[in-house]
Amino acid sequence: MDQSLSDIEERNAIRKEFDDLISVCPKCRTEDGLKLVKKAFELALDAHKGVYRKSGEPYITHPLAVARIVAQEIGLGSTGVAAALLHDVIEDTDYSYEDLEAVFGAKVASIVEGLTKLEDVFDKNQSSQAENFRKLLLTMVEDIRVIIIKLADRLHNMRTLDSMPEHKRLKISGETLFIYAPLAHRLGLYALKTELEDLSFKYEHPTIHKDISEKLETNKYKNKELLERFISPIKASLQNAGINFELKTRPKSIYSTWLKMQKKNIQVDEIYDVLAIRIVFKSDNLTHEKAQCWNIYSLITDLYKPKPDRLRDWVSNPKANGYEALHATVMGPGGKWVEIQIRSERMDEIAERGFAAHYKYKGLNEKESELDIWLQRIRDMLENPVSDSLEFLDDFKLNLFTSEIMIFTPKGRVVILPKGATALDFAFEIHTHLGYQCIGAKVNYKLVPASHVLKSGDQVEILSSEKQKPKYEWLNMVTTAKAKTAIKDASKKERKEFIGIGEKMLEEALNKRKLTTNNRILNKLLRYFQIEKKDDLYYRLGKKKIELKDLDKILTEKTSKKWIKYWGLSFGTKKEKNSPNKKIDKRKPIVLNDETDQASYTIADCCSPIPGDDVVGYVDSEEKVILHSRKCPVAIKLMSSQGNHLVSAQWTTHKLFSFLAILNISGIDKVGIVNKMTKVIADDQNVNMRAINVESHDGIFEGSLYLYIHSVEDLNNLVYKLMKIKGIHTVTRQERIQPT
Amino acid sequence: MDQSLSDIEERNAIRKEFDDLISVCPKCRTEDGLKLVKKAFELALDAHKGVYRKSGEPYITHPLAVARIVAQEIGLGSTGVAAALLHDVIEDTDYSYEDLEAVFGAKVASIVEGLTKLEDVFDKNQSSQAENFRKLLLTMVEDIRVIIIKLADRLHNMRTLDSMPEHKRLKISGETLFIYAPLAHRLGLYALKTELEDLSFKYEHPTIHKDISEKLETNKYKNKELLERFISPIKASLQNAGINFELKTRPKSIYSTWLKMQKKNIQVDEIYDVLAIRIVFKSDNLTHEKAQCWNIYSLITDLYKPKPDRLRDWVSNPKANGYEALHATVMGPGGKWVEIQIRSERMDEIAERGFAAHYKYKGLNEKESELDIWLQRIRDMLENPVSDSLEFLDDFKLNLFTSEIMIFTPKGRVVILPKGATALDFAFEIHTHLGYQCIGAKVNYKLVPASHVLKSGDQVEILSSEKQKPKYEWLNMVTTAKAKTAIKDASKKERKEFIGIGEKMLEEALNKRKLTTNNRILNKLLRYFQIEKKDDLYYRLGKKKIELKDLDKILTEKTSKKWIKYWGLSFGTKKEKNSPNKKIDKRKPIVLNDETDQASYTIADCCSPIPGDDVVGYVDSEEKVILHSRKCPVAIKLMSSQGNHLVSAQWTTHKLFSFLAILNISGIDKVGIVNKMTKVIADDQNVNMRAINVESHDGIFEGSLYLYIHSVEDLNNLVYKLMKIKGIHTVTRQERIQPT
Repeated sequence: MDQSLSDIEERNAIRKEFDDLISVCPKCRTEDGLKLVKKAFELALDAHKGVYRKSGEPYITHPLAVARIVAQEIGLGSTGVAAALLHDVIEDTDYSYEDLEAVFGAKVASIVEGLTKLEDVFDKNQSSQAENFRKLLLTMVEDIRVIIIKLADRLHNMRTLDSMPEHKRLKISGETLFIYAPLAHRLGLYALKTELEDLSFKYEHPTIHKDISEKLETNKYKNKELLERFISPIKASLQNAGINFELKTRPKSIYSTWLKMQKKNIQVDEIYDVLAIRIVFKSDNLTHEKAQCWNIYSLITDLYKPKPDRLRDWVSNPKANGYEALHATVMGPGGKWVEIQIRSERMDEIAERGFAAHYKYKGLNEKESELDIWLQRIRDMLENPVSDSLEFLDDFKLNLFTSEIMIFTPKGRVVILPKGATALDFAFEIHTHLGYQCIGAKVNYKLVPASHVLKSGDQVEILSSEKQKPKYEWLNMVTTAKAKTAIKDASKKERKEFIGIGEKMLEEALNKRKLTTNNRILNKLLRYFQIEKKDDLYYRLGKKKIELKDLDKILTEKTSKKWIKYWGLSFGTKKEKNSPNKKIDKRKPIVLNDETDQASYTIADCCSPIPGDDVVGYVDSEEKVILHSRKCPVAIKLMSSQGNHLVSAQWTTHKLFSFLAILNISGIDKVGIVNKMTKVIADDQNVNMRAINVESHDGIFEGSLYLYIHSVEDLNNLVYKLMKIKGIHTVTRQERIQPT
Repeated sequence: MDQSLSDIEERNAIRKEFDDLISVCPKCRTEDGLKLVKKAFELALDAHKGVYRKSGEPYITHPLAVARIVAQEIGLGSTGVAAALLHDVIEDTDYSYEDLEAVFGAKVASIVEGLTKLEDVFDKNQSSQAENFRKLLLTMVEDIRVIIIKLADRLHNMRTLDSMPEHKRLKISGETLFIYAPLAHRLGLYALKTELEDLSFKYEHPTIHKDISEKLETNKYKNKELLERFISPIKASLQNAGINFELKTRPKSIYSTWLKMQKKNIQVDEIYDVLAIRIVFKSDNLTHEKAQCWNIYSLITDLYKPKPDRLRDWVSNPKANGYEALHATVMGPGGKWVEIQIRSERMDEIAERGFAAHYKYKGLNEKESELDIWLQRIRDMLENPVSDSLEFLDDFKLNLFTSEIMIFTPKGRVVILPKGATALDFAFEIHTHLGYQCIGAKVNYKLVPASHVLKSGDQVEILSSEKQKPKYEWLNMVTTAKAKTAIKDASKKERKEFIGIGEKMLEEALNKRKLTTNNRILNKLLRYFQIEKKDDLYYRLGKKKIELKDLDKILTEKTSKKWIKYWGLSFGTKKEKNSPNKKIDKRKPIVLNDETDQASYTIADCCSPIPGDDVVGYVDSEEKVILHSRKCPVAIKLMSSQGNHLVSAQWTTHKLFSFLAILNISGIDKVGIVNKMTKVIADDQNVNMRAINVESHDGIFEGSLYLYIHSVEDLNNLVYKLMKIKGIHTVTRQERIQPT
């Protein structure tokens, strides 16, 4: 093809994309708006000229796509769209903040600058990503659009992840699942969140993703007729009542389906609330909206029986992220549950595009919105930084709570807390000082300890004493970031003292043996006491919670290969001198099979994957690979925080070595069924049974099989054979981990 | 006073009462109605002439009062009112069924006859009341008005119970609480049920009743201002929306308050949902009623935050007894929860006057109402009578379930079951045959045993096998009368066989020792194996679940005085020859104090009362008194079924003997608090501590004190002293029993 002709085509294509952008952004079509966006586009087009993405497209297609997401899917106005178009300009081209400020003013320039700073560190700096994330948040609290554009940027990158090498894919997917999807949830951007999750899941578990999506597709087809029978009386009834509405059937997300399967240990077909519809109605009057929701609920329950205790009233009590809707589950035809979401158009807009994207610019002036409270909390966190940036990431994630409970103060005020919050969390939520002096609580007038886990609807009165002092151990009794930060703050001084004492104690003990503290010795101690961090070791020594009487034994013990901890246990950056392994090229996936040296990798204890599972490798400071299952929460955290230590791994079928897998079995307790089961296993050449536990009660049996097995394939074959035994109802592999 | 003048006054008073009756009975004011009721009144007046009640009033005041309850509080028409006026005529006067039939027709006559038959046996025959109750039910299934008039009769008797001697009071109260109040509940007569319960409670526990009612009165006064502040915005909002309504504050019943105190082991002040209001609205349109309820709910939750999971939607899913309403709990001013009931006038009428009273005569022709299903079930029970009339009473009571759950079949049909029902109950509910073949179930697609307890909203699929056979042991796995009856039926033959085998086994074993079976030997065996009934003993022997190898030891064992069983363990009516006690006059209350012979009474193991508690005595076949607490479920059952074995008892302060009482204590775990507690107890001359268990967790301690104590008074003194210790939050006496 003629190069210049292709150039013209390319230019036309880009122009067309820009025109499309304008057509989906009503707010860009004011005179000033259009001028701003056009100027931004021209500048970006010029700045990125001649640069191409890995996929081969001109670079400008990326800012254009991000701007489109920001306009169409989130609904930002011209400032946001302009900033999105320019978001890589400072970063990747010769333009500076001052250049942009001169042309577009301070607002647009500072948003772009905010996005730049972090990209600067995010992609190039090989040090901790967590630190950079903190910087992103610093700019977010100034203008929430920074994080919204960042999320759109991330979404476009996820959509085009195919062109990335696999080790980068895993890193980006992990990060997305760990922090960006929860962040989108927290901001109420449900559509965006769902897509981010599904895409991450697709890259981490391609086979499972394909499997579930195919099954959902089949079910959809099967359920189509059922849904139509279900819907038509509702339509008739609502139309008859003069309600102006739209009714959509709603496919369940692949990722949430998988989560449910994992949580309940069931198959796709066993999920009983797969059918879902959404009713979005037009409301002419904001004050009647809520009553209209209930009216529709009443009309639907005239037709179908609602499931008790499944009514979720988020119109009376909106979620902290602004979400409003009425959810109910009713019994449809054919004995199938159907979930129904009832929302006004306004509520629907909030749900799809996020509360955050609107409230600042639309003049929805509520007293102090939950979002403001949240942003203030992030500001507080940023002002009291913890030393450890990984800890900061953990704390921040706690602030993204997805399940909420509603707690009432003695005066009846409502406080929103994450699920799992304790009375002590509540005390800190009310006031840091009250938290420090908390000695217990009365929950619904009943005396409970401070560690008591609260339920939605509890009324809580904190009991306090001036004599009470906060303790470091309280960290185990709280889940909110606010409480954690406050406890850490308070106990910092005390803790420091004891760390000093502990450090000295160890030093003296080693001196007596003519030794000094070094990493090797510390590693042995940490291993022995099963402690993760050096400071925790010192602290517990100082507090006399652990003793050094076995020191000689500990020092002479050999290092077991089996024992692996999450963070690779490397203090400092110096490498152990006797490291035998050659450096691993993390850009290429490593292939593990029977030929691979067994000493070059180990299997993580936390998730115990077997060959055939989707795995990821963590390369420790000795260049040894630790294999994690990709669904392991530890692995997900590693992907998002230590991406540069990761290597993609392919673990093909093994024939030589066996690995432990656990199967859970249940069924009707028939005479001889255990015999049949063991026979099937004994006859299988590829399986070795280590243990079997079967318990029978009231005619049902449940049990676990501990098997040594070569690969997932062999395991699946065995499951297939077991399922054919009459009386056996379920056979599922036990995942030793739960997704976060 | 001149006798004839008093006669005239009396006659005028009676006439006035009749006029009042007519004025509260709109349905009696048709020409035919009035004629019927008048005729009934004149006949009853004449028939009861010259007879006076124990209170000194002319007898006719009783039928008049019953007729008034039937007309005003339940809303029956002229037939019911006439039958109520005549209800004692066949019983107490010379009129016969035929006489009444000739004057009033077959309907009225047969209702009166129905009420007669049983009164005939109820009051005069000294044999089991349970048997008579069955006869009452036999007439009830023909015409539900029989039972309604019986309930009204009972209510009036309870209202005038003061003129009865105490041992009769206890018997009547017990019976009322055990069977008539639940029956009123089952028929949806809530107002009547509440009054019956409160009256029974008043006679059984006069002191506690007075105490609670005074406290509720005080609280009412305290909360008045609060409620007004709560109500006025609601009123304004509903008026503004053009709703025609009435708003009442609703006092909580004394009995239900006490139940809650017992269940949660708390004081009156600790019950947190004491505030309650009811909104009754006028609805012009039956089809809009439900939507109106939701509209009001929406308006109220605009003002106050609802408590999650406390919404009860009995408008979409009415209760089995026909009750319809919307219940919600919202956070009112001052941090107090307020319960709100929302009903239309029609719903309110059903709630107050019962669904049963209306549906047959108002033409509310639903498909097959839950009431019809229930009556059919009673009919089935009556047709398959169990041999034991006490068992019948138990089974019937199971049919009066007060808490319901809603279960869905695989096809989505709703089945109402009592709380606590299992998958096996569900199987029997669907079909007896399915119950017999049940081997397990799938609840929400998950495999569970047949004994699995169901939750409201569960979807249940029964797994069955043709090879399955019903087992007698299944009786422990079910709670519904239907399942129990079916299992008993099926296992009757098998059971009979094994009872025969067991009987023979014992006979042979005794023959070898030159003994024959007698009550004394049976008692020893029952005691040894802790079995209640002779047949159960034989059955288990026959099934080889118990063995006779220790027979010699059992036979030579001395009878311990401590060991008491519920039913006094008397088989047949013959008295043991060596009974040393003289016959007890059950009409007079027995007084127990330090002078009483300790051998003449024992304390029931099931409830362990101490002196000062409200007690009742059961006189066994040896004329020995067994003392029960009046709140003991066993005692309540005895009162209603073996009233003629009861004696009222007064247990005054004891100084010589001590009795076991348990205190539960909780508080903040302070150093030295256990010391302080034990010191208080040690310093108390009237208390002996047997054991103390204190457990501390996270700064809260909870514990139990086992004390030997002379009386309730001493115990209360101790509680008072303990409560003064700083850090102790609650001290409550542990009731070893739970009210049914």
